[in-house]
Amino acid sequence: MFSKETYIERRKKLKEELIKEKKSGLILITGNGEASMDYLDNTYDFKQDSTFRYYFGIDRADMFGLIDLDNDKDYIFGYDYTISDVIWMGPQNSLKNEALNFGIENTGSYDDLKLFLENSNDKKVHYQPQYRGDNIITLGELLNKTTCEIKNGSSEKLCYAIADQRNYKSSEEIEKIEEAVNVTRAMHLKAMQTAKAGMKEYEVTAEIQGVVLGNHCTNSFPTICSTNGQTLHNHYHGNTLESGRMLLIDCGAKSASGYCGDMTTTFPVDAKFTPKQAVIYNILIDAYDHAESILKAGITYKEVHLAACSKIAQGLKSLGLIVGDLDKAVKNGVHALFMPHGLGHMMGMDVHDMENFGEVIVGYNGEAKSTQFGLSSLRMGRVLEDGFVFTVEPGIYFIPELIKKWKDEGINSEFLNFEKIEEFLNFGGMRYEGDYVIENGRSRRLGLKMPKTIEEVEAERAKAYINSL
Amino acid sequence: MFSKETYIERRKKLKEELIKEKKSGLILITGNGEASMDYLDNTYDFKQDSTFRYYFGIDRADMFGLIDLDNDKDYIFGYDYTISDVIWMGPQNSLKNEALNFGIENTGSYDDLKLFLENSNDKKVHYQPQYRGDNIITLGELLNKTTCEIKNGSSEKLCYAIADQRNYKSSEEIEKIEEAVNVTRAMHLKAMQTAKAGMKEYEVTAEIQGVVLGNHCTNSFPTICSTNGQTLHNHYHGNTLESGRMLLIDCGAKSASGYCGDMTTTFPVDAKFTPKQAVIYNILIDAYDHAESILKAGITYKEVHLAACSKIAQGLKSLGLIVGDLDKAVKNGVHALFMPHGLGHMMGMDVHDMENFGEVIVGYNGEAKSTQFGLSSLRMGRVLEDGFVFTVEPGIYFIPELIKKWKDEGINSEFLNFEKIEEFLNFGGMRYEGDYVIENGRSRRLGLKMPKTIEEVEAERAKAYINSL
Repeated sequence: MFSKETYIERRKKLKEELIKEKKSGLILITGNGEASMDYLDNTYDFKQDSTFRYYFGIDRADMFGLIDLDNDKDYIFGYDYTISDVIWMGPQNSLKNEALNFGIENTGSYDDLKLFLENSNDKKVHYQPQYRGDNIITLGELLNKTTCEIKNGSSEKLCYAIADQRNYKSSEEIEKIEEAVNVTRAMHLKAMQTAKAGMKEYEVTAEIQGVVLGNHCTNSFPTICSTNGQTLHNHYHGNTLESGRMLLIDCGAKSASGYCGDMTTTFPVDAKFTPKQAVIYNILIDAYDHAESILKAGITYKEVHLAACSKIAQGLKSLGLIVGDLDKAVKNGVHALFMPHGLGHMMGMDVHDMENFGEVIVGYNGEAKSTQFGLSSLRMGRVLEDGFVFTVEPGIYFIPELIKKWKDEGINSEFLNFEKIEEFLNFGGMRYEGDYVIENGRSRRLGLKMPKTIEEVEAERAKAYINSL
Repeated sequence: MFSKETYIERRKKLKEELIKEKKSGLILITGNGEASMDYLDNTYDFKQDSTFRYYFGIDRADMFGLIDLDNDKDYIFGYDYTISDVIWMGPQNSLKNEALNFGIENTGSYDDLKLFLENSNDKKVHYQPQYRGDNIITLGELLNKTTCEIKNGSSEKLCYAIADQRNYKSSEEIEKIEEAVNVTRAMHLKAMQTAKAGMKEYEVTAEIQGVVLGNHCTNSFPTICSTNGQTLHNHYHGNTLESGRMLLIDCGAKSASGYCGDMTTTFPVDAKFTPKQAVIYNILIDAYDHAESILKAGITYKEVHLAACSKIAQGLKSLGLIVGDLDKAVKNGVHALFMPHGLGHMMGMDVHDMENFGEVIVGYNGEAKSTQFGLSSLRMGRVLEDGFVFTVEPGIYFIPELIKKWKDEGINSEFLNFEKIEEFLNFGGMRYEGDYVIENGRSRRLGLKMPKTIEEVEAERAKAYINSL
């Protein structure tokens, strides 16, 4: 947590931004409650809503932050602890004291909030799009609206104003992100140094999770740890690591301060890449390095995405998988057969930062997204600016179902040699991902040095196999 | 997963039970969806609703099970996968095939369910109490009711009928539970063998979590791993393990098959118990052993609870903490100062099995619960029967806030020597927990042998300190 002045300043800026937009009334930011697993009191690890935490700081369940635009007053409403809570949960800071830590003097209970809202029922209440049913129901109760009205009633202007603040990370935020990135790095190194043929994916996941928790972090998102890297969001961890396959790991730590890291590595199950794996991996890293080399303030991320895709297409053309005019092929989105996702996304307190506002607001600053297959999955296309933190994550996949579909339907067939492509049907997929910030116009990869080249990766993999002797 | 006949039989029995109760109409069992952490698509590990899984088997998100009582037909409604899902999630079984695995021939989409319900709008729809906001909203949409109506409209008769089935575990269920209990045991052994003075609680938690995931399990509930054992549900893991303190660990594995384990151990941060710790620990284990010795079909669990409490009170009287007439003290609930919770709870697919139905239905078979402090926290008081699986978990805690409150308010002061008690203000708390089944009238502790006595615990602790040399 930062100084209370930081939070006061953030709220002040948000207020000013909305008043500039001629908005009046109340801003109501719902904190998260506990999320139930299989009955009410059996809950997942608590994740605070990141916008709530950004402006109001408190990392406790069932809190509401309110900003009165007309009277320039900030409030926290929520639950205060009883003796019974102390028995079950240990000594707790009072709500009053907790709020003062973040520069808020006005506090009250949920009932006080209800009354407050009843007494200001002519005022407009601005709130974020909601992503949890429990919060939708609670907001409905507070604002006397149906769940459907709540779902449709969030404030776009509020989202733009918040995104315009949260997209620009302060140096103290970048420091916190870098801490999370370094834990993320340790997660990957641990996997590289322990994964061996014959292990189960879930055993590697267990090693990774030990690093997360051992650093007092939680997960930014569910870990992907799969010998089927061609499946983009594969959360099944039941396969055995077989010699000749690769393991793709996409994981990230969320630090106690609430900031995320997010990295992907792909490495051979064996100690060394096979020649076929090495060829594709080098194309991938070429694309990654090229993207990195052109990252800077002023360029659009869409350009960076397309440049990385071109590199991939070029590499695959050199192997004969793509044929014909390369520029035309890329323009037609041929590369999306091999990389159907976008090059990256904003990262901060959420791993896809503020994704609940929608990518158009956060990643495109209001511009429309492309509808082309592949580009339509690019979460961010806007001009890069100082303070932006985001991922770079090219991938090359051989997805049998997608290849079959394109072949059957003749999609982009003039640019594709399916006979050659089908030699890779059992290849799997690879992705490499790092986290970047734009500072003083230039880009910088966050965190300590990560293995990237074949040589560097194999040096780590050697440790897994040396340890086993 | 069991044979499809098992699921067909379970649904048949549920139907018969409700028809016997003169119920007609539809039973609608909502499976769980994905639970969002900080934006819609960033989700916690998926936990299926256990009643849904018990009757319909499918371990996938966004499914609905429907039983038509009048036409004796079973249905699964839910999401079927598209090519886009295959790209992101890998090859998937069709809903039709998945349903057939559990003996269900009738399947349809969410829209089909909506239509089905619209076309049967004169029929009564019986559903469970809901514990997730998302499910409340969805049920509201399906049944054209407000969230408030949904919350108040669940069927008590349905809950009784389900509890009357799920409370009696079959031998194949007990086998699955025992697997989870053995992983739970391994979690504890790992902690005992690695925790050392100077480590952080979260580092021990990381070791435990490695065992959970390394066995392809998830958590039955959030792990408690605390040097402040006197705090009953302490999820803070930031303290350092200090010499002279104890570490209390309460954790459990949930197996891929959906069954839970739940055990607690308490051991010294050092290799050996201090004399003071040993005295209290022996009182605790005496109470545990006494409870175990009287467990059998026909006894009420409330009797077992009170017998364990008496043993604790007797031990504390021998130390001079409790004074006066022991029977009268126990009758007045004096022991609850030291053990404010109940002795145990039903365990199965949920760690507190079917807690969403309420303890009166599951643990008391409709009988009213005591309102006395301590007894009011006993989740189960009913007569034990063959097939019941439950925990036994006495504890002895010195909770400074509670001691102060009782002293200040003179609660049970004629039975308490506060001067003596205050010698334990910094002692902490301990709990020991095992899992039991009633079979052929007798009780059996589930799982392989666990360390329990001081000697057994210290033998494990020696390994932690030997390894460090």
